[in-house]
Amino acid sequence: MTTATATVSVISAEDLLKTWQGHRALTRRTIEAFPEDKLFYFSVGGMRPFAVLAQEFIGMTIPIVEGVATGKWAEYGGGPKPKTKKEILEIWDRQTMELDEKFPLIPPHRFAEVDTAFGQWTMPGIAMIQYAIDNEIHHRGQGYVYLRALGIEPPHFWERS
Amino acid sequence: MTTATATVSVISAEDLLKTWQGHRALTRRTIEAFPEDKLFYFSVGGMRPFAVLAQEFIGMTIPIVEGVATGKWAEYGGGPKPKTKKEILEIWDRQTMELDEKFPLIPPHRFAEVDTAFGQWTMPGIAMIQYAIDNEIHHRGQGYVYLRALGIEPPHFWERS
Repeated sequence: MTTATATVSVISAEDLLKTWQGHRALTRRTIEAFPEDKLFYFSVGGMRPFAVLAQEFIGMTIPIVEGVATGKWAEYGGGPKPKTKKEILEIWDRQTMELDEKFPLIPPHRFAEVDTAFGQWTMPGIAMIQYAIDNEIHHRGQGYVYLRALGIEPPHFWERS
Repeated sequence: MTTATATVSVISAEDLLKTWQGHRALTRRTIEAFPEDKLFYFSVGGMRPFAVLAQEFIGMTIPIVEGVATGKWAEYGGGPKPKTKKEILEIWDRQTMELDEKFPLIPPHRFAEVDTAFGQWTMPGIAMIQYAIDNEIHHRGQGYVYLRALGIEPPHFWERS
């Protein structure tokens, strides 16, 4: 496409990290909104409970940032399997700090560079990061339905800090 | 933040349009997956049916692009109120073409410029556009729960064309 906007930068690495952390803060509030048992056992339509979805986000966030930064990919779905809401939130908070530390270490050229994430998915680094964020938004939206089905008001979607 | 990545551009206007259209193609398949009556009347937990959510996306997409491009904001929630799946998809396809035409006309400086969208929400143009995309991902995820609750397999989340 040859247009005036073709080479206009609209999102910087710094903006993207801020957006991601904003979404992660909202996801944290969504986890918190579930009663302990419902977090692990409740779902709608035979889908995965929200704890399992949160575990998926945890399994992607830092491994993707490290993979994009270094070209070394952890085993997908590895890492801790939290068994309580408290454990999930502790891992979440640790990842929040790690993300702030590790994201700025991604070498600029790695965002555009094509790599094979977790030995399976071949795409530019930026596309893997966007996938992780979009996947979190997508599944968190599902968590909102679980909460509504339980009669619980979800956190405000537009609040991101 | 003063880091190596602070001024690294990771997403261009062209990339963002491509991402948005990819998400819109997936949302179109999600609309298509609903039986006609379920699209307008089915939901879970007292939430809005997917036709009403699709109507929300339609009410935001082109008005936001026009608003960011020109500084002129349409009435929020104005526009056509489709009554059948066919009508929704026709408007959707028209907006797909309009988006390809109008997005590249956004003057580069308007992405960062702060404006008040629809007389209500004050933020940079890029933040309004990201909000529209994120809102669509969020609510489409909810549509996936409705489909699962109906025993219907949703479209593949990772397919975006």
